[in-house]
Amino acid sequence: RRTGDAEVVYGPGKTVVQVVSALAELHARHPDRAVLATRLDAGAREAVRAELPGAVIDNVARTAVLGPLPPPRGLVVVVAAGTSDGPVAAEAAVAARVHGAGVERIDDVGVAGLHRLLAVREQLAHADCLIVVAGMEGALPSVVAGLVGTPLVGVPTSTGYGVAAGGVTALHAMLSSCAPGVVVTNIDNGYGAGVHAARVARSAAPRCVPNSSSI
Amino acid sequence: RRTGDAEVVYGPGKTVVQVVSALAELHARHPDRAVLATRLDAGAREAVRAELPGAVIDNVARTAVLGPLPPPRGLVVVVAAGTSDGPVAAEAAVAARVHGAGVERIDDVGVAGLHRLLAVREQLAHADCLIVVAGMEGALPSVVAGLVGTPLVGVPTSTGYGVAAGGVTALHAMLSSCAPGVVVTNIDNGYGAGVHAARVARSAAPRCVPNSSSI
Amino acid sequence: RRTGDAEVVYGPGKTVVQVVSALAELHARHPDRAVLATRLDAGAREAVRAELPGAVIDNVARTAVLGPLPPPRGLVVVVAAGTSDGPVAAEAAVAARVHGAGVERIDDVGVAGLHRLLAVREQLAHADCLIVVAGMEGALPSVVAGLVGTPLVGVPTSTGYGVAAGGVTALHAMLSSCAPGVVVTNIDNGYGAGVHAARVARSAAPRCVPNSSSI
Amino acid sequence: RRTGDAEVVYGPGKTVVQVVSALAELHARHPDRAVLATRLDAGAREAVRAELPGAVIDNVARTAVLGPLPPPRGLVVVVAAGTSDGPVAAEAAVAARVHGAGVERIDDVGVAGLHRLLAVREQLAHADCLIVVAGMEGALPSVVAGLVGTPLVGVPTSTGYGVAAGGVTALHAMLSSCAPGVVVTNIDNGYGAGVHAARVARSAAPRCVPNSSSI
Amino acid sequence: RRTGDAEVVYGPGKTVVQVVSALAELHARHPDRAVLATRLDAGAREAVRAELPGAVIDNVARTAVLGPLPPPRGLVVVVAAGTSDGPVAAEAAVAARVHGAGVERIDDVGVAGLHRLLAVREQLAHADCLIVVAGMEGALPSVVAGLVGTPLVGVPTSTGYGVAAGGVTALHAMLSSCAPGVVVTNIDNGYGAGVHAARVARSAAPRCVPNSSSI
Amino acid sequence: RRTGDAEVVYGPGKTVVQVVSALAELHARHPDRAVLATRLDAGAREAVRAELPGAVIDNVARTAVLGPLPPPRGLVVVVAAGTSDGPVAAEAAVAARVHGAGVERIDDVGVAGLHRLLAVREQLAHADCLIVVAGMEGALPSVVAGLVGTPLVGVPTSTGYGVAAGGVTALHAMLSSCAPGVVVTNIDNGYGAGVHAARVARSAAPRCVPNSSSI
Amino acid sequence: RRTGDAEVVYGPGKTVVQVVSALAELHARHPDRAVLATRLDAGAREAVRAELPGAVIDNVARTAVLGPLPPPRGLVVVVAAGTSDGPVAAEAAVAARVHGAGVERIDDVGVAGLHRLLAVREQLAHADCLIVVAGMEGALPSVVAGLVGTPLVGVPTSTGYGVAAGGVTALHAMLSSCAPGVVVTNIDNGYGAGVHAARVARSAAPRCVPNSSSI
Amino acid sequence: RRTGDAEVVYGPGKTVVQVVSALAELHARHPDRAVLATRLDAGAREAVRAELPGAVIDNVARTAVLGPLPPPRGLVVVVAAGTSDGPVAAEAAVAARVHGAGVERIDDVGVAGLHRLLAVREQLAHADCLIVVAGMEGALPSVVAGLVGTPLVGVPTSTGYGVAAGGVTALHAMLSSCAPGVVVTNIDNGYGAGVHAARVARSAAPRCVPNSSSI
Ligand SMILES: Nc1ncnc2c1ncn2[C@@H]1O[C@H](COP(=O)(O)O)[C@@H](O)[C@H]1O
Ligand SMILES: Nc1ncnc2c1ncn2[C@@H]1O[C@H](COP(=O)(O)O)[C@@H](O)[C@H]1O
Ligand SMILES: Nc1ncnc2c1ncn2[C@@H]1O[C@H](COP(=O)(O)O)[C@@H](O)[C@H]1O
Ligand SMILES: Nc1ncnc2c1ncn2[C@@H]1O[C@H](COP(=O)(O)O)[C@@H](O)[C@H]1O
Ligand SMILES: [Mg+2]
Ligand SMILES: [Mg+2]
Ligand SMILES: [Mg+2]
Ligand SMILES: [Mg+2]
Ligand SMILES: [Mg+2]
Ligand SMILES: [Mg+2]
Ligand SMILES: [Mg+2]
Ligand SMILES: [Mg+2]
Repeated sequence: RRTGDAEVVYGPGKTVVQVVSALAELHARHPDRAVLATRLDAGAREAVRAELPGAVIDNVARTAVLGPLPPPRGLVVVVAAGTSDGPVAAEAAVAARVHGAGVERIDDVGVAGLHRLLAVREQLAHADCLIVVAGMEGALPSVVAGLVGTPLVGVPTSTGYGVAAGGVTALHAMLSSCAPGVVVTNIDNGYGAGVHAARVARSAAPRCVPNSSSI
Repeated sequence: RRTGDAEVVYGPGKTVVQVVSALAELHARHPDRAVLATRLDAGAREAVRAELPGAVIDNVARTAVLGPLPPPRGLVVVVAAGTSDGPVAAEAAVAARVHGAGVERIDDVGVAGLHRLLAVREQLAHADCLIVVAGMEGALPSVVAGLVGTPLVGVPTSTGYGVAAGGVTALHAMLSSCAPGVVVTNIDNGYGAGVHAARVARSAAPRCVPNSSSI
Repeated sequence: RRTGDAEVVYGPGKTVVQVVSALAELHARHPDRAVLATRLDAGAREAVRAELPGAVIDNVARTAVLGPLPPPRGLVVVVAAGTSDGPVAAEAAVAARVHGAGVERIDDVGVAGLHRLLAVREQLAHADCLIVVAGMEGALPSVVAGLVGTPLVGVPTSTGYGVAAGGVTALHAMLSSCAPGVVVTNIDNGYGAGVHAARVARSAAPRCVPNSSSI
Repeated sequence: RRTGDAEVVYGPGKTVVQVVSALAELHARHPDRAVLATRLDAGAREAVRAELPGAVIDNVARTAVLGPLPPPRGLVVVVAAGTSDGPVAAEAAVAARVHGAGVERIDDVGVAGLHRLLAVREQLAHADCLIVVAGMEGALPSVVAGLVGTPLVGVPTSTGYGVAAGGVTALHAMLSSCAPGVVVTNIDNGYGAGVHAARVARSAAPRCVPNSSSI
Repeated sequence: RRTGDAEVVYGPGKTVVQVVSALAELHARHPDRAVLATRLDAGAREAVRAELPGAVIDNVARTAVLGPLPPPRGLVVVVAAGTSDGPVAAEAAVAARVHGAGVERIDDVGVAGLHRLLAVREQLAHADCLIVVAGMEGALPSVVAGLVGTPLVGVPTSTGYGVAAGGVTALHAMLSSCAPGVVVTNIDNGYGAGVHAARVARSAAPRCVPNSSSI
Repeated sequence: RRTGDAEVVYGPGKTVVQVVSALAELHARHPDRAVLATRLDAGAREAVRAELPGAVIDNVARTAVLGPLPPPRGLVVVVAAGTSDGPVAAEAAVAARVHGAGVERIDDVGVAGLHRLLAVREQLAHADCLIVVAGMEGALPSVVAGLVGTPLVGVPTSTGYGVAAGGVTALHAMLSSCAPGVVVTNIDNGYGAGVHAARVARSAAPRCVPNSSSI
Repeated sequence: RRTGDAEVVYGPGKTVVQVVSALAELHARHPDRAVLATRLDAGAREAVRAELPGAVIDNVARTAVLGPLPPPRGLVVVVAAGTSDGPVAAEAAVAARVHGAGVERIDDVGVAGLHRLLAVREQLAHADCLIVVAGMEGALPSVVAGLVGTPLVGVPTSTGYGVAAGGVTALHAMLSSCAPGVVVTNIDNGYGAGVHAARVARSAAPRCVPNSSSI
Repeated sequence: RRTGDAEVVYGPGKTVVQVVSALAELHARHPDRAVLATRLDAGAREAVRAELPGAVIDNVARTAVLGPLPPPRGLVVVVAAGTSDGPVAAEAAVAARVHGAGVERIDDVGVAGLHRLLAVREQLAHADCLIVVAGMEGALPSVVAGLVGTPLVGVPTSTGYGVAAGGVTALHAMLSSCAPGVVVTNIDNGYGAGVHAARVARSAAPRCVPNSSSI
């Protein structure tokens, strides 16, 4: 990678064998760095578990990580609206951690229940970069961006039905946010948000943030 | 009207002369009821003002009303996110009033500034029916519907640019609301929301609502 | 629920175990109220039937209800155009009943056979709120709203093929209705229409409506 | 024309001079037949009126006809939902007449006022081919096709706003009609419907239809 | 049927049992007329074959017909562009025949091989109504309508991939035809085209058309 | 230009002054080559005419050319369906000529009048590359590509109304062509087709093509 | 502003008087901070220039700034593909500067001329955050993100015609970038990108970046 | 084939038996030429392998070729961005070879890793026609067309997710290319690009190109 980031294997369209050998090979080449694989289906995760015992598998995020994680620098907080947004939030968290940031998660803070969101305002304010994951009407980034002035990436998810199905409504809503400074990734692209947020957090001047590198 | 509602003249596609004579004729036929004209451009409003001195013109709502308003029954509260949503909110308010409801307005309570919205929670709770008007990401109905259990109609507006231009994003966001019971009208259709809300408010069992019929 | 409504479990994306335990837990917390689960596939319904013998399962609506229904207040009439609109109409009916309204159903009154619709005009006029369910060209709400002045919610369904497939044509047709006051939910969202209509019917001033709480 | 139909000049994209000379030239070549020009703006109509005194101009249909009309054979009935559908209905009527059919018009029979439509049922049944023109939700063809078994062409119009703007909703609704045998033209294409309907009416076996060739 | 047409059962969304009993019941009520079922999958066709031995099954058209066909009046010619348009052409042919017209078929005359089309020009000219079925770019109706002046219905099919997938390109191309008088049905709606064409052909004044009622 | 092609100035978004000075400056730098400006409105063309007397203006193509044309190598034939496709065909012709090819034009050969197209078959066969320009249903490239095996570029135009408005239908139809080997440019992009076709024609092995470099 | 950012006036939909008084009022309230107005048309800029002599007007960016700029912290580099992307790049630069970052610009580095882009690689690597502005196919962010590992925001612009018109193609291309970590704003939203990038740059740990606060 | 090209069998929608017999029959009719079958699934390939031992199967391209290949004339170079674009690139290569051109392949030269692309610049310059295959943001044709002045066909692929899913983003990006002369095929249509490129390469005047006919 000319950009200095972790190597990443994108699972879809690869056979189980291709995933395992890509991970193994990249790990052999860079034994001192983490290699990440994303979008692994159950079969691929099973094979990685069997063939590469050192790999850390996340069944919700559908990821595998091989090799030592970098020390966490800065803090990314991943906020998710509903339970069905969980896998995308988890992918974002893993990606941010692998790319060198400390990570915290806040779940189930949808806009139709503001009290839950208002209760975590402090935690939001500690982040160097926020990742806000939501499906359906995709309103959460607007509300969060109205509460704190932290760099914020919205991630629309494909959850929902009817005109929400597939995530375009959430995507377009986030792009249309009336709150200034909301930037956005492709639908379900937790990975991309994690990379961007980690870069922001890593280069942020240190602030006092206690106990935050576990995801 | 077989449905018992006020007669309404829809301005677009009509000449100034057609608008004036339609209003005059319907008023002559039903001198005891209000007749409403909507979507009047400046020329049409000017002509109505000149030809029908009894008409009440609203330059923001772009409406004209001729004949006595019905006594207000029940309360419709019209909530708007931003200043550019004003004309649609005003059209909704006039329509609800002409169709027999009392009306109150709450403006400038966008989701990126929650404190303003939380401050009017009481007023929201007094309504028999809420009309919530928003453009861009159309998030306001979700947030309001999470605060009170009142019947609520969302009205998406065509304000915004890029993927928000034209109002489809706000429309689809409201239809995708994660808050239960949000129903929606066509883009910029304050009139339709006013009719529905007035019907709901008029038939609501009386509650104690002070001073509310002025719009 | 801050809004005072019934608790609801949305089935898609949840395992059978998650659905059963969500229902059980909410019921334990509110034994005096009904808890509703929607969009349950055959497996989830089977598991609820086995694990929660007190639950009332509706195989067409794909719902489960646990706990005592509230006493019916006011009347919601659910009108459906065709037989393939049946599941959505049934979901609307169950949701309205669980949220506190009496409910009646009228089926198979598509716009291409007006005589059937004209024959039930009386029954339509008794409702406090109408829910009108239709797919394909979604014309039924316009026709019904031309017959009676009752608050009316249109629910577009995803039945149809070609340009009707998925329900967007029915949705856009209902939003474009030439009849005033038609409000609309997302495609197939009988649940949302039921919640809105129940709120309207519950707060309506009492009228004399005989024998109507069975669905 | 190899197909034996009238020659037609399509106005848009042509200068006033081009329109006039195209009409003149085609008329010189076929002095015994009508030549039709459509979609003429005010300037083009003015020029035709000045230069070709024999031309019959229709300011609503925006057409000009030069040369003798063919004797009317069979009957086309053009039905329109609202007043803004008038220009398209007029274009259809002129085109059907020029292409050899007798023509009648029925206006203002929208689906939200069924009594008006039911009152003209007899007249509908006399037609050899029906043209049904409607904008917004485009529901009228479905309702008419449920009343009579006559060949029927739906013409969606571009009237309406929000999701109805431009006519795609009306078009898709007509294509999705639950009534069998509805066929459709492009948005605002009254001309095309007139050509098809005239062909059907001209070749229909004679029935007794009194006094119908005036448009 | 108030419109006097055959009764029709639309298969999708019905169980095998529902299809069989709908056919049986309609046949019992009208033993002197044909009843048609469309869009039957293999299972439904198998069940109809087993339960209703009098039914005539068409495995390509995916139809079943029960009861005597009406005598053929007039001639519908069904033209298809490619082999994958065959099922839709077959559905159109069966529907036209059941609705009372004589029917002929012309296959494999795509626009990229004009010589085949030019060779059948005579046969096209004999029809009282043409049905032209094509997928992909949907160009065939324009070319056929340039050759003969017969009433013509285009039927777009969902064959194709990329931007042609699903049939919208063929549909929009047919609606945009530069040939006058082309009318169109929904994607894959051979049935609707058959109904319209049969109505046109049945009422056409007799011409001399030899041996044409077999499909 | 690293690719060795002519320098080109794209007019839209540039002031009259910017267009003139861009042309002048590029001409000064490469006095031995042609410089092309496209999409010039009337004002820009007027200014070029006044300020740069050596420029050759084409009012239909809306282009200006300054400097000597290259000697024509190979032959590009530009075929257009209708008169409203003329400006795009003209832009393609100018671009091909400026980029070094000989050019011929064939106009008014729409698919609804095949005899005109069949009459020019010989001329089509002489080309080294064909550019086929059509709007509305965009069928012409399919038909032409079925007649000759020459490299062929389709150019969809934005002429048409309803679902044809803007050119997407023509674009998608050409991309979906059932004739093999049709490649396509953006809507109205005659320039791009001219560049591609000239590259093909220039590098083609010489064949005997008489008198063809005039456009 | 609860988020601590500059106050901003959004011009569209406001009268000249409203823009001037909003700027004046916010400046009076916060004389020590910059107030920004965006999307000002020529009339509004003229009025601001006349009424508020202290305001700094940018005619390309279409912005006005009143009050002292904050000291620049960190470096935002704004990269633009073509000249028509200039106004959006300028809006991004002004917004980033007003929100507290140092700003540099790199223009005319489109992907069809890689040598220009490769020549500025060093300058790209100095940024704390990159803003990459491009219209048409929107490819520039992918290429830049492959060269450096800096946080990067893509801004699609509405330049282009045919399928590029309006900016959706550039938007979707940037969202689909094969380069990891590209985040995106709405079409033409230079302002939003500037806010995000300034937040990132301001909080970045200091690096040695010489002479960069002029825009 | 009137156009003189190879006969081709398109697999989708054909049974295994139909594919085999179509290949056998065409081969019997033209034993001296290659016959190509495309889009063959595993079953069809297996059957061809078993029944037609002379056929050459390509499992990545999903093609079968029967009969002698023509001698290679000219050179087509097929460039692919990512590994998931492989099958489309392979289809293009096989089609170009069967249609008479020599073919070379360049893989894995995505725009986010420019160094790989710059390294093959020489090889690109040798081609008579380039085919550039890319999914997701579809940027590769713009970059390649900026490096060399060779005729170039872009082929968008359906790889990607979110707004990239299905290939429309890549298609529209290529059509919007800021590099002049890029022409495009339908999504995943390697076959069509191969036919066009082979025609261009075959007719190109010979240049010195060493060792290139193997694919
Ligand atoms: N979940 C993901 N979403 C989007 N891009 C990804 C994802 N995971 C990996 N990638 C990208 O895919 C590249 C690896 O692709 P590949 O070589 O096909 O495995 C990585 O360098 C990332 O840029
Ligand atoms: N059929 C439905 N359609 C839309 N929303 C629903 C439906 N059923 C339940 N919901 C909503 O989903 C919420 C529960 O979601 P969950 O916590 O994921 O089970 C409820 O509070 C409802 O607001
Ligand atoms: N160019 C712009 N694009 C998007 N949002 C903007 C822009 N300029 C200002 N804003 C937003 O508009 C708000 C001011 O809106 P208003 O109160 O209507 O003037 C600011 O707080 C910003 O969030
Ligand atoms: N992969 C492909 N994509 C597009 N068209 C193809 C493809 N393969 C074959 N064709 C076309 O399909 C025709 C054969 O179709 P068929 O007669 O149905 O087998 C050929 O002449 C080609 O024009
Ligand atoms: Mg959400
Ligand atoms: Mg808003
Ligand atoms: Mg229906
Ligand atoms: Mg209408
Ligand atoms: Mg076809
Ligand atoms: Mg054309
Ligand atoms: Mg660009
Ligand atoms: Mg790619």
